[in-house]
Amino acid sequence: MLNNVRVILSHTSHPGNVGAAARAMKTMGLTNLYLVNPRFFPDVQATTMAVGADDVLENAVVCASLDEALQGVVMVAGMSARVRGISQEVLAPREAMPLLMQHASHPVALLFGTEMSGLTNEELARCQLMVRIPVNPDYTSLNLAAAVQLLSYELRLAADLGDCGAPEGGALASAEHVESFFQQMEETLTKIEFLHGKHATKLMLKLRRLYARARLEADEVNILRGILTLTTKYHGELKQSVKAKEVENVQSD
Amino acid sequence: MLNNVRVILSHTSHPGNVGAAARAMKTMGLTNLYLVNPRFFPDVQATTMAVGADDVLENAVVCASLDEALQGVVMVAGMSARVRGISQEVLAPREAMPLLMQHASHPVALLFGTEMSGLTNEELARCQLMVRIPVNPDYTSLNLAAAVQLLSYELRLAADLGDCGAPEGGALASAEHVESFFQQMEETLTKIEFLHGKHATKLMLKLRRLYARARLEADEVNILRGILTLTTKYHGELKQSVKAKEVENVQSD
Repeated sequence: MLNNVRVILSHTSHPGNVGAAARAMKTMGLTNLYLVNPRFFPDVQATTMAVGADDVLENAVVCASLDEALQGVVMVAGMSARVRGISQEVLAPREAMPLLMQHASHPVALLFGTEMSGLTNEELARCQLMVRIPVNPDYTSLNLAAAVQLLSYELRLAADLGDCGAPEGGALASAEHVESFFQQMEETLTKIEFLHGKHATKLMLKLRRLYARARLEADEVNILRGILTLTTKYHGELKQSVKAKEVENVQSD
Repeated sequence: MLNNVRVILSHTSHPGNVGAAARAMKTMGLTNLYLVNPRFFPDVQATTMAVGADDVLENAVVCASLDEALQGVVMVAGMSARVRGISQEVLAPREAMPLLMQHASHPVALLFGTEMSGLTNEELARCQLMVRIPVNPDYTSLNLAAAVQLLSYELRLAADLGDCGAPEGGALASAEHVESFFQQMEETLTKIEFLHGKHATKLMLKLRRLYARARLEADEVNILRGILTLTTKYHGELKQSVKAKEVENVQSD
């Protein structure tokens, strides 16, 4: 579906922005860049900023007019940074991008105006959706490539490609595995006299809650049990050694 | 709430990225920039790229270590670009940023690694949340400032949406409190001979991950430290008693 999305940059002044926009698009899986009357293109600065997204630049379609760039497009979402005279509903990216994706079985477009002044009224009139990125009202200076990045990201999420990869963790420990760990912990903590008296129950509950929250993996339960085993093993050995000495002492007395 | 968010950039190589990151932050209403050992800073390229976000650069806190940058921070979300050996759950920005905002009545942090290699394992071990921006698997080259832009945007949405219910548990432990716990744990586990040989470092990292994931509360750190203290105290006493007996034996021989 993302293959049907065109990113149209109108009358860009800075070739570096075109390159950075290409890179931003490609990270989100967008590849169709259209340039309406770019001031400089192709340009070495654009290539430098594209860092490995040169294919997007090479395949960019340079157009003499917006009409040309919109050929075959069924829906246009225009980026608007400012409130304008023309009344039209303005949507947040999170609302607008799913709407755009709904139509992306045919060509659809994201339209960005110049770095300085955004879209003209004529360009806005071609948009079925107006999108505004929520920004700090005291500092609205969103870079063109940054705006492309944010909308491409929202498009990727809207296309259901928002999965950030399978979780890395190992297999979760089974309930009985975790329970056996808690049993051993209680025994050990009693033995080292951490648990005693009226607070024992409450402390064990707190510890259970802590480890429950961590959602322990099987591997981790084994590590924790290993620690407990060594704690008591060492204690046991030392105690035996103390006792043995006591016996010896009694015998040698 | 956004005032309590720190953006921490670790070991940046390119000053232009620092400036672009400052601009990205400010458009979303974030102002607290922390730089851990930046290669060049301050730098004219940073200022050029900041375009009106110079105040963010001027107020940036340059730190000699991550510890310094995390002083007082109760929750750290680390940006991870790659799958790594050690298991930890990775969240999408849309899931992770509301979690971070839930705790932003105290200082919280977004942590970004170097442009080339991302966060080190040691840095990741300091994070309670791991965040991965969903990207095109065939081209993952997200610019540092673009990543800052996307996460700042999600933070802004998370802050504006107001669906940040109060966290359920008690007050989270500060970074230095948790760190002191880890130090004590390492000492104790070495003493009881759980940590030894070539697996020691990896085991400690695994344990750090586990507890980081649990997002420890101050109260819980105190309980865990209490357990560690008793573990070694008991060992110490038993050892002394063994030694005392040995001395007695020698004397009575």
